[in-house]
Amino acid sequence: MGNGKAEYVVGVDLGGTKILAGVFKDPPLCVATAKLSTKQSRGVKSVIERVERCVRDAVDEADLSMKQVAGIGVGAPGAVKFEDGTVIFAPNMEGWRDIPLKAELEKALGVPVFVENDGNVAALGVYVGELQGAPRSMVGMFVGTGIGAGLILGGELYSGFGHTAGEVGHMVLLVDGPRCGCGNKGCLEALASRTAIVQRIKAGIKGGEKTALSGTIDEQGDLKSGDLRKAIRRGDKLVERVVKEASEYIGIAAANLINVLNPEMVVLGGGVLEAMADEMMPVIVESARDHAMPGSMEGVQIVASKLGDDAGITGAAVLAQRETR
Amino acid sequence: MGNGKAEYVVGVDLGGTKILAGVFKDPPLCVATAKLSTKQSRGVKSVIERVERCVRDAVDEADLSMKQVAGIGVGAPGAVKFEDGTVIFAPNMEGWRDIPLKAELEKALGVPVFVENDGNVAALGVYVGELQGAPRSMVGMFVGTGIGAGLILGGELYSGFGHTAGEVGHMVLLVDGPRCGCGNKGCLEALASRTAIVQRIKAGIKGGEKTALSGTIDEQGDLKSGDLRKAIRRGDKLVERVVKEASEYIGIAAANLINVLNPEMVVLGGGVLEAMADEMMPVIVESARDHAMPGSMEGVQIVASKLGDDAGITGAAVLAQRETR
Repeated sequence: MGNGKAEYVVGVDLGGTKILAGVFKDPPLCVATAKLSTKQSRGVKSVIERVERCVRDAVDEADLSMKQVAGIGVGAPGAVKFEDGTVIFAPNMEGWRDIPLKAELEKALGVPVFVENDGNVAALGVYVGELQGAPRSMVGMFVGTGIGAGLILGGELYSGFGHTAGEVGHMVLLVDGPRCGCGNKGCLEALASRTAIVQRIKAGIKGGEKTALSGTIDEQGDLKSGDLRKAIRRGDKLVERVVKEASEYIGIAAANLINVLNPEMVVLGGGVLEAMADEMMPVIVESARDHAMPGSMEGVQIVASKLGDDAGITGAAVLAQRETR
Repeated sequence: MGNGKAEYVVGVDLGGTKILAGVFKDPPLCVATAKLSTKQSRGVKSVIERVERCVRDAVDEADLSMKQVAGIGVGAPGAVKFEDGTVIFAPNMEGWRDIPLKAELEKALGVPVFVENDGNVAALGVYVGELQGAPRSMVGMFVGTGIGAGLILGGELYSGFGHTAGEVGHMVLLVDGPRCGCGNKGCLEALASRTAIVQRIKAGIKGGEKTALSGTIDEQGDLKSGDLRKAIRRGDKLVERVVKEASEYIGIAAANLINVLNPEMVVLGGGVLEAMADEMMPVIVESARDHAMPGSMEGVQIVASKLGDDAGITGAAVLAQRETR
């Protein structure tokens, strides 16, 4: 194949905190990556420009030119209209309502762009890149700033009637529970995302509980998943309890999905899971077993993904490859 | 076709309260039905004998013999192992754990029997008998003594890895909420089934609230869906409030399913819905809209089934026809 031929695809994972781009020859084979912080406070236009820059950085990193890129897949953190690549609503991104992301990026980059929900894309990444398409059905749940998910049913990404399936983070688990970024109350995301975990630690501190993370929270206004892991490993009881509660909620959500969908596998990923898989997975599995209907867990595997942060870019690249071939 | 040819199928709906059997020539064309009360207190063996008798009654009602029946489909109220027709667990049926229903009925009736979860079967009945297979994806939710459901995805009944998908009634909506028949807490079924509605009315009476149904509850220990409807239409505030709350929970469950699956249609049926569709449907639709992610309800229809009690036997007959052809 000649140098000028568009034989590469780019996968982009657009998150509330950071943008990742990866150049792939034949996904999951990644040849180069780039990373930028999202800086969503600068506004929607700025974020789109940063996505563009991140793609160009990754392509440059791979010693390629945009002409060698056949297509770009983007995982976006919200409800997406796949046909025209509009982000309808992104609960963790300020001002993201009806944003024509595909059109803007195609104008800027001159390459076909395919936008899909980030949970769908990450599930596709795990399914193709980690499981080699083996299970017939799989739910991927990704716990980070928010909670995304994607469904593989009958060996295919299932995106539903209006392409919005997989919004597992907004499944209500606790009617009238804590307020969620989506406007509702008691969604899984409001109970078990990193955002929710940090909120609960803050509330614990306010209530007089002790944690070594008080200073870190004061400085950053936030906590990284790695901070949480370190605190637990140092014996921080508040953090341990809050992360345990979040894990229990994730297990209940997994049980709900097992009751409804009875998938062959539930795969958990995202920054929070990646940092604390050892602490969280046993609690998640036990909570799922406690809440699933007798019989419906039989043979169903609940595992942590090994792809980590690469699930999103891998899946986005798979999407781009499928759409351009 | 000769008289001796097995060109009929029988559909059975085995419920916690009653057993319905229908003889179908080409489902949804029903030629005769029969009905018996379940009398589950008499034990599992007795219930199976009553299913057998109900099938024989329906076949006799149609002036046919068992030789003209090619197969029998049965919808059972719990988790079912489809391959060997075992009822693994039926939360609303006392003592039903690992019951070889298919084997027992085949031995008794001498005709191939196919056992499937009642929600799956009813969803199939609505899909084929009422919607003529038009939508690509549909969730059927059936509110009665318990709450069953079935999923049609990609035009097919979706039953999952171990054939237990569709246990929507045991989706947890309210962590640590009221105790459910399955052993867990806060399941949809414990919040919105007829059983749950009656519990809440009893609690209201205990708490000093007034209702014209006090006497009826004392007599029957239970209430029929028709009793509830009549009470509301006579202006009974307690019953109105409890049914409204149940409808709100059903709407939240519908929103959860729309967030996760984004189906083209959500169809509601079962005795409770059938009796009070006018009262419940507007509340269910509003509650679903309030709790679904923005964008994910677009174009999604939430409607009441017109098949009523016939959904179960129709779907069971469709199943039998598909499995024997």
